[in-house]
Amino acid sequence: VDRDPGSIVAFLFDDFETLDLFGPVEVFGHLSKLYTIRYCSLEGGIVASVHGVRVETEKMSDVVDDPDLLIVPGGIGTRACVTDRTVLDVLRSAAERSTWVLTVCTGSGLLAATGLLDGRSATSNKIAFDWVRSQGRGVRWQPKARWVIDGKYYTSSGVSAGIDMALGFIGDILGINVAEQIAAGIEYIWNHDADNDSFAVE
Amino acid sequence: VDRDPGSIVAFLFDDFETLDLFGPVEVFGHLSKLYTIRYCSLEGGIVASVHGVRVETEKMSDVVDDPDLLIVPGGIGTRACVTDRTVLDVLRSAAERSTWVLTVCTGSGLLAATGLLDGRSATSNKIAFDWVRSQGRGVRWQPKARWVIDGKYYTSSGVSAGIDMALGFIGDILGINVAEQIAAGIEYIWNHDADNDSFAVE
Repeated sequence: VDRDPGSIVAFLFDDFETLDLFGPVEVFGHLSKLYTIRYCSLEGGIVASVHGVRVETEKMSDVVDDPDLLIVPGGIGTRACVTDRTVLDVLRSAAERSTWVLTVCTGSGLLAATGLLDGRSATSNKIAFDWVRSQGRGVRWQPKARWVIDGKYYTSSGVSAGIDMALGFIGDILGINVAEQIAAGIEYIWNHDADNDSFAVE
Repeated sequence: VDRDPGSIVAFLFDDFETLDLFGPVEVFGHLSKLYTIRYCSLEGGIVASVHGVRVETEKMSDVVDDPDLLIVPGGIGTRACVTDRTVLDVLRSAAERSTWVLTVCTGSGLLAATGLLDGRSATSNKIAFDWVRSQGRGVRWQPKARWVIDGKYYTSSGVSAGIDMALGFIGDILGINVAEQIAAGIEYIWNHDADNDSFAVE
């Protein structure tokens, strides 16, 4: 593919869930000729995952060009984010400017708190589903789905579902062969069916 | 379990493979009452994964107490590590002092270069298997295995196999129910059979 690399922006916050972010990063990292990945947070600087992984980030407001893709992880840190008006404003703006938005796990609860998922179908971590529902009463939450697509929004179920969704997104955009090559390259047994959710609780 | 937390040391180096490390970190992170995880490198400071994730690390020599568990990821950065005598010495010492050692992907090639796997069974990423073999002619490399256990050494196949192995290790040490609870908590479809390797090339 002969074009300038697109940009993926990962939105980090303290106590994000480690694999929510780094699963999709691993997948998109195999498309380094197509995408550069930037790691951003509200203030920039070091942001720590809930497992103590301290990651250097850029300030979100330093992202001037519109991202091709925004990735929003979940995790216990979403609980503080949804009560922080500044976080919600910055996230909403970034999501509006992005061509595509992918949330993992309770990242959809965080995105729902911006209002951007109102009237749309979405899913999330099944264990935290009640909390997620409470963040967006106008969202058509799907209790049984590995991931859900509605317009430019891809929302996945818990943690490792983000890997399946990232591969699904690549399959949709670049073709199933590209997704399958990446899955094989990381020796990952891809659950490629968005409707196949063995962790649904209802 | 009523005891002081044990310590897990993750050994980072530039251009490590992102998911090799953060898959197992996610799994062990769910045992935060049992283990603290320290992120270490030869010199300390910021270390970047091959996908540009910049992680703050401690200096390996600052780890004074013997680790319960050492995690060694793989990735293209292993190629530089195996020609660096200082890295090999530090890694060998840490591995000797650790109760258990887990390597993911080409991390076993790096560990093999220290000589510690000589005479033992081990496995690795199947795509990079020739390079891995060349790092340890005295190792009984297994071309078909999701992961291999030999004494205190657990070695896994490529990238996401590290998640399966980490769960397998926990199953061995703490019981299968603990491993299954963690897998369910991260909505991960666990390949729990170390001999089930659908990515073997021979």
